[in-house]
Amino acid sequence: MIYFDNSATTKPYKEVLESFIKVSSEYFGNPSSLHGFGGKAERLLMQAREQIAHLLNVKHNEVYFTSGGTESNNLAIKGTALMHRKRGRHIITTGLEHASVKEAMDQLKELGCSISIIAPDKNGIVHAEDIEKEITPETILVSVMHVNNEIGSIQPIKEIGEMLKKHSRVVFHVDNVQGIGKVPLDLYQASVDLCTISAHKFHGLKGNGVLFIRDGLRLSPLLSGGNQEWKMRSGTENVAGIVAMAKALRLTINNMERRLSQILSIKRYIFEEMNKIEGITVHTPEKNSAPHIVNFSIEGFKAEVFVHALGERGIYISTTSACSSKKAAASSTLMAMGIPEKDAKSAVRISLSYDNTMEEAEVFIEAVKENVIRLREVMKS
Amino acid sequence: MIYFDNSATTKPYKEVLESFIKVSSEYFGNPSSLHGFGGKAERLLMQAREQIAHLLNVKHNEVYFTSGGTESNNLAIKGTALMHRKRGRHIITTGLEHASVKEAMDQLKELGCSISIIAPDKNGIVHAEDIEKEITPETILVSVMHVNNEIGSIQPIKEIGEMLKKHSRVVFHVDNVQGIGKVPLDLYQASVDLCTISAHKFHGLKGNGVLFIRDGLRLSPLLSGGNQEWKMRSGTENVAGIVAMAKALRLTINNMERRLSQILSIKRYIFEEMNKIEGITVHTPEKNSAPHIVNFSIEGFKAEVFVHALGERGIYISTTSACSSKKAAASSTLMAMGIPEKDAKSAVRISLSYDNTMEEAEVFIEAVKENVIRLREVMKS
Repeated sequence: MIYFDNSATTKPYKEVLESFIKVSSEYFGNPSSLHGFGGKAERLLMQAREQIAHLLNVKHNEVYFTSGGTESNNLAIKGTALMHRKRGRHIITTGLEHASVKEAMDQLKELGCSISIIAPDKNGIVHAEDIEKEITPETILVSVMHVNNEIGSIQPIKEIGEMLKKHSRVVFHVDNVQGIGKVPLDLYQASVDLCTISAHKFHGLKGNGVLFIRDGLRLSPLLSGGNQEWKMRSGTENVAGIVAMAKALRLTINNMERRLSQILSIKRYIFEEMNKIEGITVHTPEKNSAPHIVNFSIEGFKAEVFVHALGERGIYISTTSACSSKKAAASSTLMAMGIPEKDAKSAVRISLSYDNTMEEAEVFIEAVKENVIRLREVMKS
Repeated sequence: MIYFDNSATTKPYKEVLESFIKVSSEYFGNPSSLHGFGGKAERLLMQAREQIAHLLNVKHNEVYFTSGGTESNNLAIKGTALMHRKRGRHIITTGLEHASVKEAMDQLKELGCSISIIAPDKNGIVHAEDIEKEITPETILVSVMHVNNEIGSIQPIKEIGEMLKKHSRVVFHVDNVQGIGKVPLDLYQASVDLCTISAHKFHGLKGNGVLFIRDGLRLSPLLSGGNQEWKMRSGTENVAGIVAMAKALRLTINNMERRLSQILSIKRYIFEEMNKIEGITVHTPEKNSAPHIVNFSIEGFKAEVFVHALGERGIYISTTSACSSKKAAASSTLMAMGIPEKDAKSAVRISLSYDNTMEEAEVFIEAVKENVIRLREVMKS
């Protein structure tokens, strides 16, 4: 199998699974238990938190564990809106965001918040000045993703953070689910207040994520109870999953250092080959895009037909984001970039990991070519 | 080690870990992905849902996967309050509930809901007629746990459900985290609308839970996004954890059938021995209590001192609930039962699993006796 759907989910590293099993079987105590066996679990949790903080270059008390990217995004957005509801009810976001940001905003709208949605340019990038224009004294939150999950465009997080320094009461949330381990982002330098990551996107396990919450910032919790995670997120900690996530993050960041050039050459090769094939339009911008995502349309092919055609050869790619892939609608990200609906409906995404090889890319390109040729013959006959 | 803290968390069954590893390594696809590899994960998810539905004796479309008991309780309570906020804002609960119910209620109070808290009798049991007295046309939700996590008392869920049939607009939520696999509960027969269970309390993995939502009932989601779980709970499903949970539930329910008499004799033995020791008061009622929990105070011992004293011998027990064990406050459950604060502060809990043995109980009783004798000598000298 050639797995080119790493933005949907990744294969857990062997070492990640080994850590999970070790902790689950030998240190299964509840970290909140007072006895020594619970204490061992608590220490593992603390070590994992420190490791992740170190890898993210933040403080350990800024790392909050959640059940994944969707929860982190919901907690960041709803938790801010609820916490600051007396100060203001205006939120700014972009037309590029993941469903877990979009839908959280929609729910807040129903509850009386007003939402400004910034359109990206034709390369799928939003600009700090467009965001600034929308800021009012009522604005409590700006939420912008780092790397777009569908086309891979990189947003100018540092510039937006710089601009927001002039608006110190506005909380800045960054969904970094697709960027982590692929495109470096210094959270302090970019003045980020809240940042989402999800373990299963970097070879960790599903059901584990982090919300970075800048020291001193308070949110209204979505899940209240036993007061774990400094009261911001209650519930028995998934210690084994968290230890596994720390390992996955370390291995991924190591790989970023060792294998970035490899993934970049694969991406460059795919770009070049795609541009040679008649009827293919690449939507991912060549500049300011992540090393692992390429989005393109094939004229005359419905996206799902093409995904299935490659699937039959054991090549797994995606229509848009996995979370929305079963909706018939055209990608709202591509539409926001001004791409015609017809092209948006035939857009597919490939997303690489550091484990993919040039040989796989060559097989993939051959398969694309053959499918395009076969389609043309069907059309002619 | 003698692990008598199974109400805090349990050791995952070997078979549960094996399932987890198999799914995580071989079927790691995203169930929302359109391709065949995602389809395999989707089928596993569907099978697990059907298995759990079968074991709970409900329909597969009534089983919603969450990250655990805390999330299920929060979703049930806040999701109902938000969904029905225009119809009413009054909620009834009990003085016995877990922190994840209590704190969710406290948050709703801040947002304008009014909460009635029903006191239990001296055996730690609430009565349907006391709940009914509080119902007003504004009441939208009644939330009562099945088995109390601190003393093990069983609440009359069937009677409460029967009474609520007269009040059809009131949603009935049951926190069954401690009861599942220990005390049978027929959800349909008891007219339960919402029911919480958590995998790591029955030898599954932390980070996985279920909220049973009666067919046709709608909640406002806490985590919105990619519309997984019929839009009630978005986020990539933890397929491996869910498959593991289905296995854990099946094995636990099998054990309930095979080993209930064993756990009951251990409990009876502990009760009898405890009653012979001077200075010990057992708080768990002999009747209407679960087979696995015994709560008692030792005169003159602070709970944490006693927990540590047994911990030194490798016997792990708990002060109150794990989630609240690091707070210095006396158990609110025991206080609600009318137990004096002094006794409440010296209360400890043992909680068994089907894997515990009579030999372990004997070692435990010896350790209790020796500690009580040692304490008396210290007091005399």
